[in-house]
Amino acid sequence: MIQRLIDGIVKKDAPVVVGLDPNLSFIPGFILENARSFVEEGGREIPEYCEKENMAAAEAVWQFNKGIIDAVCDLVPAVKPQVAMYEQFGIPGMIAYRRTVEYSRSKGLIVIGDVKRGDIGSTSEAYARGHLAGKAFDVDFATVNPYLGSDGVKPFLAVCKEYDKGIFVLVKTSNPSSGEFQDVLTGDGRAVYELVGQKVREWGADSMEGVYSNVGAVVGATYPEQARILRRLMPHTFILAPGYGAQGATAADLSEFFDPDGLGAIVNSSRGIIAAYKKEEYGKFGEEGFADAARAASLAMIEDLRGVIHGGRTVWNIGR
Amino acid sequence: MIQRLIDGIVKKDAPVVVGLDPNLSFIPGFILENARSFVEEGGREIPEYCEKENMAAAEAVWQFNKGIIDAVCDLVPAVKPQVAMYEQFGIPGMIAYRRTVEYSRSKGLIVIGDVKRGDIGSTSEAYARGHLAGKAFDVDFATVNPYLGSDGVKPFLAVCKEYDKGIFVLVKTSNPSSGEFQDVLTGDGRAVYELVGQKVREWGADSMEGVYSNVGAVVGATYPEQARILRRLMPHTFILAPGYGAQGATAADLSEFFDPDGLGAIVNSSRGIIAAYKKEEYGKFGEEGFADAARAASLAMIEDLRGVIHGGRTVWNIGR
Repeated sequence: MIQRLIDGIVKKDAPVVVGLDPNLSFIPGFILENARSFVEEGGREIPEYCEKENMAAAEAVWQFNKGIIDAVCDLVPAVKPQVAMYEQFGIPGMIAYRRTVEYSRSKGLIVIGDVKRGDIGSTSEAYARGHLAGKAFDVDFATVNPYLGSDGVKPFLAVCKEYDKGIFVLVKTSNPSSGEFQDVLTGDGRAVYELVGQKVREWGADSMEGVYSNVGAVVGATYPEQARILRRLMPHTFILAPGYGAQGATAADLSEFFDPDGLGAIVNSSRGIIAAYKKEEYGKFGEEGFADAARAASLAMIEDLRGVIHGGRTVWNIGR
Repeated sequence: MIQRLIDGIVKKDAPVVVGLDPNLSFIPGFILENARSFVEEGGREIPEYCEKENMAAAEAVWQFNKGIIDAVCDLVPAVKPQVAMYEQFGIPGMIAYRRTVEYSRSKGLIVIGDVKRGDIGSTSEAYARGHLAGKAFDVDFATVNPYLGSDGVKPFLAVCKEYDKGIFVLVKTSNPSSGEFQDVLTGDGRAVYELVGQKVREWGADSMEGVYSNVGAVVGATYPEQARILRRLMPHTFILAPGYGAQGATAADLSEFFDPDGLGAIVNSSRGIIAAYKKEEYGKFGEEGFADAARAASLAMIEDLRGVIHGGRTVWNIGR
């Protein structure tokens, strides 16, 4: 699966994933209104345990996502729906998640399910099967939390192998407090995130596809110093880097994330793209033009990152 | 909310929570058969995105759970559904989760949603609202993963305050590999789980209800030594202790978890109760008697734990 992601990145010359985190505050008012009317007028069947309010929110999320997906699917190789933004609306929310995943895949996009699941044994296996085995919520990659250790991650590896899927394990997250536990120095002078990175390397050794493994790592774009250390520690690990744009990371921060040939990482932006129409810079698009604004913001981000991966360095070498 | 849990424990004299982790291999064949026929014969509406296979599995899970809940609801104060076991069956699975939660609450049980969610900022808030705010999957307590630090936990605290709910933060988990990151010694000689425990204490300081906080901790019954340290480090933190029975912990291991008055912890058993009918000890009940076997196993566990909390020590002091 990692090779499919790399092929997409190379083909579109865009190491960019669009985060589909449709917070209701990002969704234009006219979509919220339309969705409410659509549900009120019986446009969707209302199954058991589906409150009308959740139905309307989920419908708005779906209509919004569809606009974004249509606007960016030829520019970027992947999208990353954040399941919490769907789960909060209960059953209709989870239906909207599934609809989003399936529509994205029908448009040729690779889907990274940002689910941050992690448990142990048969429970982790149930999560892995639920999200990666083609029977329920079928994404291509899932994000996984490593706090419980190998017991929690290994069941994902087995399911990934069986279904040709991948995971990204949280190593160093992009948020301000990520250092509270992740940066703590251990007795031998290494930080906790380095121990996790070392394990990610080990977990991934048996899932190689070419140069990279199907076991990737999440490393926040906001932490270039840690990325430099991790890039060396995990030479065959593809990095998913959130934190670009709205969270403050710039293209310059990202140079440490890529290998010399420009591969090795994919950078996420959520709010910066899907809510671009709210920024002064893209204000001319207006609410109605939210999807065009997202497209323009994607193009700007791609240009920005091309400067990093191609600037003075090797261009793509597809035959590597 | 923690006081409601304590009241339940004292009233039923049972610091026990039954884990509703209905792995299909635990469910008697006749229930799986019944559920399949029920779905085939149109006994449940099949909404969008609900494959028949998932519908049948979810129906079996629900019928099984209902049997268990009916059999134990007068004995124990709480149940802990493990959401992964439902999520793996997609939309119908999540409907079965919700049905289980609501039915448990209607029977006077407190519901601990074992969701192990954890993200940052508005994403954590979305999880908290989805699981604790009465609008989607409405449990009384949720389990939370701390790897992302305070940014991930604080949004849960705010929602808990607003809706009188609680959380249990993973501190030292019960599984064999939990030590890989949790036991790592930091520069000052404390283990990572102690740093997390210290934070749990801090996060909970503003959510006290009587002696205990609405911010609890998960500490595996399989690790009594770490529990002794944590019990002292977090004197106002209620502990949810998984790992009793099937995972190997005994009542003797649990004495470190309780305060001298017998409060301070609630012990989970999942497989050991819900799949008791598969054990030689309860074999006489047979498949058809799975619920009676669960009741018998609950009674045995309660007796066992009463020995720990009352043996040579203070009995309940409700007025504390």
